[in-house]
Amino acid sequence: MVKKPTPDRAGPDRVTSDRATPDATRRSDRSRRAIRDAALALVAEVGYPKTTVEGIAARAGVGKQTIYRWWPSKADVLLEAFLALGEQAARDAGQEPYRIPDTGDLAADLKAVLRATVDELLDPRFEAPARALAAEGLVNEPLGREFVAKLLEPQLQLYVDRLRAAQDAGGVRPDVDPRIALELFVSPLAQRWLQHTGPISHAYTDTLVDYALNGLAPR
Amino acid sequence: MVKKPTPDRAGPDRVTSDRATPDATRRSDRSRRAIRDAALALVAEVGYPKTTVEGIAARAGVGKQTIYRWWPSKADVLLEAFLALGEQAARDAGQEPYRIPDTGDLAADLKAVLRATVDELLDPRFEAPARALAAEGLVNEPLGREFVAKLLEPQLQLYVDRLRAAQDAGGVRPDVDPRIALELFVSPLAQRWLQHTGPISHAYTDTLVDYALNGLAPR
Repeated sequence: MVKKPTPDRAGPDRVTSDRATPDATRRSDRSRRAIRDAALALVAEVGYPKTTVEGIAARAGVGKQTIYRWWPSKADVLLEAFLALGEQAARDAGQEPYRIPDTGDLAADLKAVLRATVDELLDPRFEAPARALAAEGLVNEPLGREFVAKLLEPQLQLYVDRLRAAQDAGGVRPDVDPRIALELFVSPLAQRWLQHTGPISHAYTDTLVDYALNGLAPR
Repeated sequence: MVKKPTPDRAGPDRVTSDRATPDATRRSDRSRRAIRDAALALVAEVGYPKTTVEGIAARAGVGKQTIYRWWPSKADVLLEAFLALGEQAARDAGQEPYRIPDTGDLAADLKAVLRATVDELLDPRFEAPARALAAEGLVNEPLGREFVAKLLEPQLQLYVDRLRAAQDAGGVRPDVDPRIALELFVSPLAQRWLQHTGPISHAYTDTLVDYALNGLAPR
């Protein structure tokens, strides 16, 4: 995970809360966390379509209006909850600020980060909200663009950075566009996971990296 | 497009209709076509979530029960309609049975078919129902698996066939798994189109083919 929490989502309310007493701020933070946790739990249990703002409010022990004060829709609650979940996981793993390691062995570094991504995609705590958000993003274009801008693209930029370093070190051809090149190993994994077009595993992503770096044609 | 029409979706009713008089069969085929056309038109106009079986029936000039006699849900109507649309397009283009051309130049053949795919993905007649079905398939697992099995995987197998021919001709390394290799150029296009992670164009898919065949590392 890459992004800092996004207090701008909360708008003016958040500003008010920052100026409030420490106790009020703490209560407010606690409510926000309870709402995010409730949203993630509900989506995992009943799916995105049956998750409602009312249901999230009831489970979080807050009024519906408390949610609408901070977020315009359930999709926005879920997006923020999912971002916070990823940030927590990154902190737990001591990986903040996150970047792709540079050991000098590009293939090994890419394989390591893709293996970790496979593990995350197979973890039900991530899988349910990530799939729900991705699905909603296909038909709800503003949410989809926010999902991509806040969640997906910052992660893709980490690959751009690592590929640029490899170009400087001579491990990737200088004429290669890193933003397109990363898609050769990232997009296949994304499509298999999203559309169930095939199984995902460490062996699979290792193969993608080998093919992408060395090509399919004989050398 | 690849697949023949799928009369098995209609089950016993279809068998009955095949045994009926030629006039009844013709009327039945006309109704099915009207229903498919109405489903495609509605999805394009109001989107998948607001498309209902009632709406499709009204637009097709049939009763709701006529639809339910042949299809269990609007998703199934739309899947069949979309398959039929692709078959019609393939017939119109004289490309039935469809396969990827083999001119002996693998890069040129892959670029040609991917350019045609870009054109199709940018055509609103295909785009609206394809996106609607893909989105529904992410959250509706049986439909998703049917979408992949009937629509996506048969198309991917055409790339497998072409890559196998290239292996026989020495243009692709013999140790490469064609079912994985094709994802290096197909999945990036699919993800950009589905999730709006970037623009799609002929230049973009040409680049994907070049990177996939020759790799990112210096030769």
